[in-house]
Formats: sequence, C-alpha cells, structure tokens
Amino acid sequence: MSELEKTKRTTITRLPKRGSYESETIHSILDEAYFCTLAYERDGVAFQIPTGFVRVGEKLYIHGSVGSFYMRELLSRKPVVSIGVMLVDGMVLARSAFHHSVNYRSVILFAQPELVSEVTEQYHVLERFTEKICPGRWADIRKPDAGEWKATMVLSFDISEASAKIRTGAPKDDEEDYDLDIWAGVIPTSFEMKTPISDPALKSGVDLPDYLKNSWK
Amino acid sequence: MSELEKTKRTTITRLPKRGSYESETIHSILDEAYFCTLAYERDGVAFQIPTGFVRVGEKLYIHGSVGSFYMRELLSRKPVVSIGVMLVDGMVLARSAFHHSVNYRSVILFAQPELVSEVTEQYHVLERFTEKICPGRWADIRKPDAGEWKATMVLSFDISEASAKIRTGAPKDDEEDYDLDIWAGVIPTSFEMKTPISDPALKSGVDLPDYLKNSWK
Repeated sequence: MSELEKTKRTTITRLPKRGSYESETIHSILDEAYFCTLAYERDGVAFQIPTGFVRVGEKLYIHGSVGSFYMRELLSRKPVVSIGVMLVDGMVLARSAFHHSVNYRSVILFAQPELVSEVTEQYHVLERFTEKICPGRWADIRKPDAGEWKATMVLSFDISEASAKIRTGAPKDDEEDYDLDIWAGVIPTSFEMKTPISDPALKSGVDLPDYLKNSWK
Repeated sequence: MSELEKTKRTTITRLPKRGSYESETIHSILDEAYFCTLAYERDGVAFQIPTGFVRVGEKLYIHGSVGSFYMRELLSRKPVVSIGVMLVDGMVLARSAFHHSVNYRSVILFAQPELVSEVTEQYHVLERFTEKICPGRWADIRKPDAGEWKATMVLSFDISEASAKIRTGAPKDDEEDYDLDIWAGVIPTSFEMKTPISDPALKSGVDLPDYLKNSWK
C-alpha cells in the first residue's frame, strides 16, 4: 500500500478515524464513481461544476468543449481546484435521531489543471471515458473526426494531494439506547444502471449489442 | 410558475437551452436529491464538502456538529458559498463518440449561511432531515436530548440566486450518422434504496417497522 503525504488541505480533522491517504483506497473510489464535482475560486467565490471523469494511473482527467467558459478559465488561470467524489452506500438508521448517519466513500483532491496536448494520451483518455461507462462501446462507435478532435479539450490533475473518507457498517448508538424498542439498521443504497432504451430514431435492424446485454443489474 | 432573477453567477452560458430559473423546477430537483456539495473559498482555494440537506420553503438547510471546523468557519465568516446538486437519470449512448452524453437534472445556488437559532425552526428542520430519508421515522425514534441539541448546528441558505440545468431524452447525433449500423439509446440510471438490513445488535423482538417495509423499490 502506498500512502500519500498529508497536507494542511487534505488532513481530516472531523472523525479522523474515517480518513485514509492510501493511493489504492483513493483510486478504487475514483474508479467506481462516474461523476465528480470540480470547484475553483473566481472573484472570491467558489464555483463548482459537476462533470464526468476518468482516472488513469496517478492522474484524473476531465474533458469538455474548447468553447466552454470554465474549461477555458481552468486552462488560462490554472487555479488550484478541489475535486470531490462521493459514493453513497447506505442510510444509517440509529435508535436516536442524533446518531442517524450515512455510509459513504468519498475522495477530495487538490490539484492544478494541465492541458493534455499529446495525441496518444488524449486518445487513450477519451477511449477510457467511453469504456468506463460502457465496456465494449469504443470499438463499436464512430470515432472523433478531425473537427470533433479540435473541439475537445482534455485536462489532467495529479492525484498526489488527496484523501478519502469512509463510513461503513451498523449504527453506533449511545450505550443506554440499545435497550430501546426501536428498530435500527442500514438501508443499502446504490447507483444503478437499468435496461437500455433504444433511440426512437434507431436504424431498423440494429440490435442491442452483446456488450450492453449484461452491463446492468 | 415563478422565475428567479438571473445573475452573472447563475446565468448559464454553455447550452443555455438546458437552463431553467423556475422555482418549481429548482425545488423539485432539490427535493429529490439527498446530498449536495457545498463549496466555499478559503485562502484563494475552493474547498468543498459533500453533505445532506433539506429544502423547506425558499430555504436550503444543512446541519452538522458545532465542533465541525467547516460549520464553524461558515458561521464565523459567512462566505458566499455555492451549493450544487446533481441527479443522474441516464447514460446517453450516441452513434459517435463525440455525442455521448448524460441525462441529468442539476441545480447550482449561491448564498450566504445564516445560523438557525430559533428553536421551532431548528426542530422542524431536524425532523425534515429524518423524514426526507425515511418518512415515518421521526415519530419512532428517540428525539435529541438537551446535550445533543446543543451539539447540533443548523445553517440556512436562501434559494434566491439559483439555476437548474437539465438534459433529457435520446442522443442527438449528426444527421449523416443516423444511417450507421450502430446501436444508440439511453441506459437509464437511478439512486436506489434496497431492503433494510437490521443492526446485528438489534434488541430481540424488535421488528422492521411498517413505514420501512415499502420505502424502497
């Protein structure tokens, strides 16, 4: 296991036992999540954007239109941003209102954006975006043409200043409350993909591909 | 329908057709979401915290420990924060890599924190927190005692400077791509609650309450 160095920004002060600085833990949370929130300062206020992302190695990547105001701002100003991800695993119902909680796995990282200008890296990242959501899809679809390629910006962020925070398991009630006649436990939660719905404009005779037949619960 | 006034911060510049400033739309997204990301500036960097919230009327509420560093900081500095919520409704698979997209409903709002010190409002908000996740729960559980009450901070944020952004429906491909033999459509997604799991320390003879028997799909 490799441990990231704690910084003032990533040190968990509230319930520090839930914190982790292990790369493997941080990567596994990032790899399971499809969306992050990217926040950056503008005129003294923290703006935020929800966006898709992929992790490759020690970097997190986002992509967007070269015409997007915030992508251009990130590129020109290169501010330190925070990127946050949260997976919600369950609602924790305690005997007392006070001890109700949530089971979650979250990551926060701080980094400056870097433009990905190398074509092989850019191509690989765009492939990973598609494959993360739907393994097998990239081989099947029309790849970006020259104009689309030019219209797409890919930015990378080092995953070096980061921490994870995790809560798992049953509720923790006050000792004297365990004798109350109140049900307690966890409602498990998850983000789920369902049976795909074909585009009404789908060309006649085109079937659902095999790689999409078992990709959801 | 009541329309919120656009500000420089809430005006949607990228794909403005997806934007909405209607209170009813904004409220409905907030009411369906359990978690938000709260971001605020500290030393020129945008920090962010994922947290639960409830909406009551024209206000959004968060709660936390009075010992929490960020709750205390919000209270003492009263910075303008951004609060973001995203509901993900589907992965949009187009014929071209370029037009892959996501169906979502998101809200961003900007506001300054205000301490909720009035006891009736505070009590009502804490009740709503529990009832939002699990309707029927509040009547069943041990309510906060004086010490727990003192340990809990509730902050409110006006929902007056806010916008929503929504994408729905099928992929939009380039005209000439509709003739390709590539499947296109949407993988619907949702955040789901599953069958509750009892606390291993549950007092013998305590059954799952009726209000929890049908609260998930």
